[in-house]
Amino acid sequence: MNRFLDIELLDDQAIASLLETAAALQRDPVSDALRGRVLGLVFMNPSVRTLASFQAGMAQLGGSSFVITPGQGSWGFETRGGVVMDGAHAEHVKEGIPVLAEYADALGVRCFAEGKDLATDLGEPVLSAIAAASPVPLVNLESAVNHPCQALADWKTLDDLGVPRDGKFVLSWAYHPRPLPLAVPAAVVAMAARRGMDVTVLRPEGYGLPGQVMETAAQAASFSGGSVRETDDRAEAMEGAHIVYAKSWQAPSVYGEVEAEARLRDGLRGWSVSEEWFGPARTDARFMHCLPVRRNVVVADEILDGARSAVVQQAGNRLHVQKAVLLEMLGGRAT
Amino acid sequence: MNRFLDIELLDDQAIASLLETAAALQRDPVSDALRGRVLGLVFMNPSVRTLASFQAGMAQLGGSSFVITPGQGSWGFETRGGVVMDGAHAEHVKEGIPVLAEYADALGVRCFAEGKDLATDLGEPVLSAIAAASPVPLVNLESAVNHPCQALADWKTLDDLGVPRDGKFVLSWAYHPRPLPLAVPAAVVAMAARRGMDVTVLRPEGYGLPGQVMETAAQAASFSGGSVRETDDRAEAMEGAHIVYAKSWQAPSVYGEVEAEARLRDGLRGWSVSEEWFGPARTDARFMHCLPVRRNVVVADEILDGARSAVVQQAGNRLHVQKAVLLEMLGGRAT
Amino acid sequence: MNRFLDIELLDDQAIASLLETAAALQRDPVSDALRGRVLGLVFMNPSVRTLASFQAGMAQLGGSSFVITPGQGSWGFETRGGVVMDGAHAEHVKEGIPVLAEYADALGVRCFAEGKDLATDLGEPVLSAIAAASPVPLVNLESAVNHPCQALADWKTLDDLGVPRDGKFVLSWAYHPRPLPLAVPAAVVAMAARRGMDVTVLRPEGYGLPGQVMETAAQAASFSGGSVRETDDRAEAMEGAHIVYAKSWQAPSVYGEVEAEARLRDGLRGWSVSEEWFGPARTDARFMHCLPVRRNVVVADEILDGARSAVVQQAGNRLHVQKAVLLEMLGGRAT
Repeated sequence: MNRFLDIELLDDQAIASLLETAAALQRDPVSDALRGRVLGLVFMNPSVRTLASFQAGMAQLGGSSFVITPGQGSWGFETRGGVVMDGAHAEHVKEGIPVLAEYADALGVRCFAEGKDLATDLGEPVLSAIAAASPVPLVNLESAVNHPCQALADWKTLDDLGVPRDGKFVLSWAYHPRPLPLAVPAAVVAMAARRGMDVTVLRPEGYGLPGQVMETAAQAASFSGGSVRETDDRAEAMEGAHIVYAKSWQAPSVYGEVEAEARLRDGLRGWSVSEEWFGPARTDARFMHCLPVRRNVVVADEILDGARSAVVQQAGNRLHVQKAVLLEMLGGRAT
Repeated sequence: MNRFLDIELLDDQAIASLLETAAALQRDPVSDALRGRVLGLVFMNPSVRTLASFQAGMAQLGGSSFVITPGQGSWGFETRGGVVMDGAHAEHVKEGIPVLAEYADALGVRCFAEGKDLATDLGEPVLSAIAAASPVPLVNLESAVNHPCQALADWKTLDDLGVPRDGKFVLSWAYHPRPLPLAVPAAVVAMAARRGMDVTVLRPEGYGLPGQVMETAAQAASFSGGSVRETDDRAEAMEGAHIVYAKSWQAPSVYGEVEAEARLRDGLRGWSVSEEWFGPARTDARFMHCLPVRRNVVVADEILDGARSAVVQQAGNRLHVQKAVLLEMLGGRAT
Repeated sequence: MNRFLDIELLDDQAIASLLETAAALQRDPVSDALRGRVLGLVFMNPSVRTLASFQAGMAQLGGSSFVITPGQGSWGFETRGGVVMDGAHAEHVKEGIPVLAEYADALGVRCFAEGKDLATDLGEPVLSAIAAASPVPLVNLESAVNHPCQALADWKTLDDLGVPRDGKFVLSWAYHPRPLPLAVPAAVVAMAARRGMDVTVLRPEGYGLPGQVMETAAQAASFSGGSVRETDDRAEAMEGAHIVYAKSWQAPSVYGEVEAEARLRDGLRGWSVSEEWFGPARTDARFMHCLPVRRNVVVADEILDGARSAVVQQAGNRLHVQKAVLLEMLGGRAT
């Protein structure tokens, strides 16, 4: 495996193998499998979980890592082709990425959406430019509309929780004071569909996921026997749910229109997940979120502090699945 | 040992054991005792010595570490309970700390005082919230009113310098252009008292340490046969001193009142330690400071560049005692 | 070797030995030669290549490293002697460097020019203060007017490319929207002269390198049989060139005069390297640059994307030569 950019690009066998390796690494985390190997982590945007889990994961496998933060402590990276670089960015990924590849056996890159033009962000121009420039294995640490590490970790969490392959998965939009990227909802809805689940996207008017995102998920569902639909009817969506996965995202209907989006979002503070939401769900329904999460804004304390919450387990699985990806990429042996 | 938050919570045997291990690690610094183990370092405030010494220490013991800086490169952490998180902080320690504990065998956290309300800071609300949230061993990397790593390193330095257990220890306030936290003076006065020393806090009017801090130190002295008192009479304080430990701190009498504190402090530029101060002290009296120190403001070049200064040795001992704490916490064997 | 501050301070044998070790490390990069050894990296200015290559290099040799960024995440370092430290800087290198040396077996420091007074910068006051303060081996990670890691890497690249020892080396000034330091041009012109090359500095009026820089290069040439001269005639300079090394630097003639320098530079946008420049050069002439480089400002896409470019190879050699320096300094065995 030379690229880990999107789990939809992996076949069923590859996904199953990664999940199996991840489980083995969770049981037996420390080895020398990647002794002398170096991972280069490039964060164009902030990170807590991703940075910590990749650095810890490489260390537990006997390797090491370094962190570059273009634009913070160092200059920003340009990604567009043919541009006259007389602005803020002092280095192009066409140099920056091959150079870092001289120092690292694999690279990971985080590059959020610009958030201005939906079609542009859906095209993943930054990740594509970086992937084209990288001569070494590359991991997507969250791009404009994807987050495969999160998706694979969540898949493992669903397995760990014993949620049936064809269980009911609700991805619910939630209120947040800032407009957030589409990466996690897009990756998670496709993951759940690919896992064979009965997927419902619960969201207010104006927050329907982009057509391309829903089509990708529908295609994933067609391979696995799952299904995908959208609704704004909470009671209907929650009926019989195994999982409620909350996440905020900016309105695709007014994408990049900052004031219009803020007005639309301001009226939706009631979209805050609480125990009351779970009335129509299964009694053992669980709550998921990729973190960070704003307490009592996105979801109530009672959920995060109660038995439904799987959020720490999800984050823990980031470590295990990412180590599996690194082992697969760098040719190391599982412990 | 599952927590290293305050050396006053350790019994004499535990302190003696840590100091003994630290000395052994100073003689023989490199091992594989913590192979595969990971330390997560969370800096809510800047650091030089603490970051470098913990990263170096884990590496010398065969382990590794990662660094998270909430609010700088990533979002800030909320610590209050029950709060509606619609402000600047995007993650609560109730998630952030357990998540980092999924990636690390132990955590260290730096969380300075807010500096607004003395009673609040004395209650250590941030450290307490983090300690309550951490399922793994936790090290205090400097909190609102404590700095146990510094205190233990300074204890070792006093031992290394051959200062008698019942020697005279003077903690002197010094002028500084900014209002500084109480963490080091509070930790050091208690440490010296606990070691059995004759402790004098030399400070101008308005800079008396808070009652709670002096009571903690007095209690420590009562266990060890030491003593603690305060004065603003320099000649009397310095009489027969073995050690002069300089440190600036904001005025507890006008804590959080920025302008009043600045006015009070502005008139005290004469509180700058120089050779002349040492007249009444023992001829072999030594100078200590936790660093960073402003030359010719807090203390004159002649002291730092002369034979009295023990400041680099103090900083060096940070490494050795912290490695002892890590070994004790993570169950490794001493070399 | 206890200092790596300037390759002109090394004798021919030392340079040859480092290049030989670097080549061996390129073939066989991973070892345990520096097990348990720690490198402390102090970046007073931003870095991508240097940070990544030193961290990767120490890891590949079985050691580790930590990074301190004074002034960003921590306080700035004062370097002047005798100063009253009541300004922005909270720590003096007289403490900061010996303290970091307590935690590290060697230190590397990056300290750019202040860019105000040429004579001051040519005197390397910051690097000198740090070197005087360091009790452990010290590497110059780029100082006011030197960059020995870059120079040694470029020497290796010239060897790797098969460029004759007495080949023609053109260092050409190029336009850049910001005034840049003299470190790389100064180091590179001396390196090429020391290697025995026929060196031409091609630059517009006002951009002649400082006398001290040219004298150092001339002295280096006198040892090796090389030569050094300056011109503003591009056709003449390029005639028969083996190498065109592009780099922008601020005008020494109006050093530190921000507006005058900007006016002078603004008229020189034509100094952008393109294929057309290579007309009079050898057909197999190669293009070098230390990176980061602004595409279509300093140099055209056609060069960087074509067969002439050696820029990634140069950056890759940073890793190999720096590992050789570390091995030499820390007494490790080559693999």
